[in-house]
Amino acid sequence: MNLESLNTPAALIDVVRMNHNIERMQQRMDALGVSFRPHVKTTKCQQVVRAQMDAGARGITVSTLKEAEQFFASGIHDIVYAVGMAPTKLPQALALRRQGCDLKIVADSVASAEAIVAFGREEGEPFEVWIEIDVDGHRSGIAPEDDTLLTVANTLVSGGMHLGGVLAHAGSSYDYDTHDELVRIAEQERSGCVRAAERLRAAGLQCDVVSIGSTPTALAARHLEGVTEVRAGVYVMFDLVMHNVGVNDTSEIALSVLTTVIGHQSEKGWAIVDAGWMAMSRDRGTERQKRDFGYGLVCLENGEVLGEYLMSGANQEHGIVSRFGTPDREIEQRFPIGTRLRILPNHACATGAQHPAYQAVSRDGSVEIWPRFYGW
Amino acid sequence: MNLESLNTPAALIDVVRMNHNIERMQQRMDALGVSFRPHVKTTKCQQVVRAQMDAGARGITVSTLKEAEQFFASGIHDIVYAVGMAPTKLPQALALRRQGCDLKIVADSVASAEAIVAFGREEGEPFEVWIEIDVDGHRSGIAPEDDTLLTVANTLVSGGMHLGGVLAHAGSSYDYDTHDELVRIAEQERSGCVRAAERLRAAGLQCDVVSIGSTPTALAARHLEGVTEVRAGVYVMFDLVMHNVGVNDTSEIALSVLTTVIGHQSEKGWAIVDAGWMAMSRDRGTERQKRDFGYGLVCLENGEVLGEYLMSGANQEHGIVSRFGTPDREIEQRFPIGTRLRILPNHACATGAQHPAYQAVSRDGSVEIWPRFYGW
Repeated sequence: MNLESLNTPAALIDVVRMNHNIERMQQRMDALGVSFRPHVKTTKCQQVVRAQMDAGARGITVSTLKEAEQFFASGIHDIVYAVGMAPTKLPQALALRRQGCDLKIVADSVASAEAIVAFGREEGEPFEVWIEIDVDGHRSGIAPEDDTLLTVANTLVSGGMHLGGVLAHAGSSYDYDTHDELVRIAEQERSGCVRAAERLRAAGLQCDVVSIGSTPTALAARHLEGVTEVRAGVYVMFDLVMHNVGVNDTSEIALSVLTTVIGHQSEKGWAIVDAGWMAMSRDRGTERQKRDFGYGLVCLENGEVLGEYLMSGANQEHGIVSRFGTPDREIEQRFPIGTRLRILPNHACATGAQHPAYQAVSRDGSVEIWPRFYGW
Repeated sequence: MNLESLNTPAALIDVVRMNHNIERMQQRMDALGVSFRPHVKTTKCQQVVRAQMDAGARGITVSTLKEAEQFFASGIHDIVYAVGMAPTKLPQALALRRQGCDLKIVADSVASAEAIVAFGREEGEPFEVWIEIDVDGHRSGIAPEDDTLLTVANTLVSGGMHLGGVLAHAGSSYDYDTHDELVRIAEQERSGCVRAAERLRAAGLQCDVVSIGSTPTALAARHLEGVTEVRAGVYVMFDLVMHNVGVNDTSEIALSVLTTVIGHQSEKGWAIVDAGWMAMSRDRGTERQKRDFGYGLVCLENGEVLGEYLMSGANQEHGIVSRFGTPDREIEQRFPIGTRLRILPNHACATGAQHPAYQAVSRDGSVEIWPRFYGW
């Protein structure tokens, strides 16, 4: 199978670029002296995660228990479920642990810790729990200096659970776009999480793991003293949001959507393509960044970035391709009906999720189907 | 199975509301004297489409050939693929017709018509083609008065294809929010499409079908003289975008996402839930409308709309629930960990697409799994 034989729209992975991205991150983690635990929510794809493990990753991060189940079934044991534990999901987590999965779960409140203790005691299961630390106010977690941190830790330990460590995610790093700002937020993520671990240890509690990470902070951090492992997800594909943040060039984006031109509105400078938001996702993550790419940046079928054209609008199965700035009234001649283009996505996690499989394009142009799963 | 036994997040269909919505639209079409051809892209679900057909729909509209294949396999023959035909997809369309599917395809340019003629002649297949008419400049199609209309029609007919009719979709109707504006755009859609049919007939060409539609215009049109059929999709579920357009109350929205509270940031007035954008979609369709609902409007588990709370932010598997306006610093007491809520979506087509199945909740509270498919 090759590119020409593919139906459109299709989600392409450029395998050369993907391997380059994996290598870049792993080398950086090795240089910083920390373990690396990729977040597999980005691709939910066995072949991609296998490449990440082969390159040196130790264990994975998941965003759903379905991901844990699927990757445990494929042979990965060391898994952290990095979303605060809903009490009703404890039986599902227990089933995984009983099957031999080294699943770690997360708590960031006394109520959550109490629910884990109550269930763990009833079932005789000492769950390994990591406490989520809030280092930037962007979502969940306990602030490093908050007294709740010790209360939660003591609730877990006195309840017979295993306090495995602390984890933080500086999600606000996506809001910056200069290297200095990224260095600053990376240090804030590191120091906040390390401080939480120190407070636990000062209180006589064990805290082996100090886990931090996001793609921008992982790539910007100057040092990671006190940190034991880093998590990152989107780096494996990169995307236009990360390009605007400043951590990758467009030529490093490994995911694109192959599409076909099906019509034109020449007076408006529009080419209509058969990839709409169903193929790209509704993610408009670049809208508030320094450059708005609409629904994506247009490349030739061979992957060459055109630079001047974007997907400026999208309906469910229709995309509108047009030029940045002034309309291209010769767009019908430039991209006649049947022309195939590739669109680089705003957000690789969201775009991938729209597709049942990736089409993995190797250096020699051959294409393999790499399935991905979805749902909960 | 019942609501309490469901894992979260889950996409719920309130079957009573869905049947009410189906009945409302079908009665309206009957009163206006036109056939009704629902757009199945909204749900891609056999059980929903079966209910639409049982209520009186004649045939279906699809946005992908996969939808055509799946619904043809389930016994529906009369199908229009309402996206401009990509030449490379003609073999797939041919295969469906050879199996007995009465598949209609769409063209809106000479190049597209020529490609259909070339392929149809080579294969000895007189494709039935409908010409897409542009009634509001929002996307594809040929303007009713454009000379290209006759050129495309003559290309098809002289090439041995069957010119079945004309179709239009006033997608811009989503941009309005008063009844008078909807009445006006509905009349524009009707008159433009009828005018195109009249021009074809005046040129001695046959044009049996005059097909128009969108949920807002279908519900606003005062009369449909000259129209033979109407297409609409999202009405079967309705959503917050359509609520802002003014065609449904929030109590008529049949789709919601069931979610569980997993944490809080009380000082900010946030409850964190286990439905993020993966469960809601990234669709922010209400952002530019008269009321911005964030990622959705919050209801109690039993479906009662709370009105004051919305999903104000979303990451992949985390949602932030907060109050409109001033923060609710007692949100932890109001929605403790483990509380289950329902979130009404901005856009039912986009939210449904994130889920492998709907959980259909009947009047008696029993729940059935209704699978849906995705991909191309």
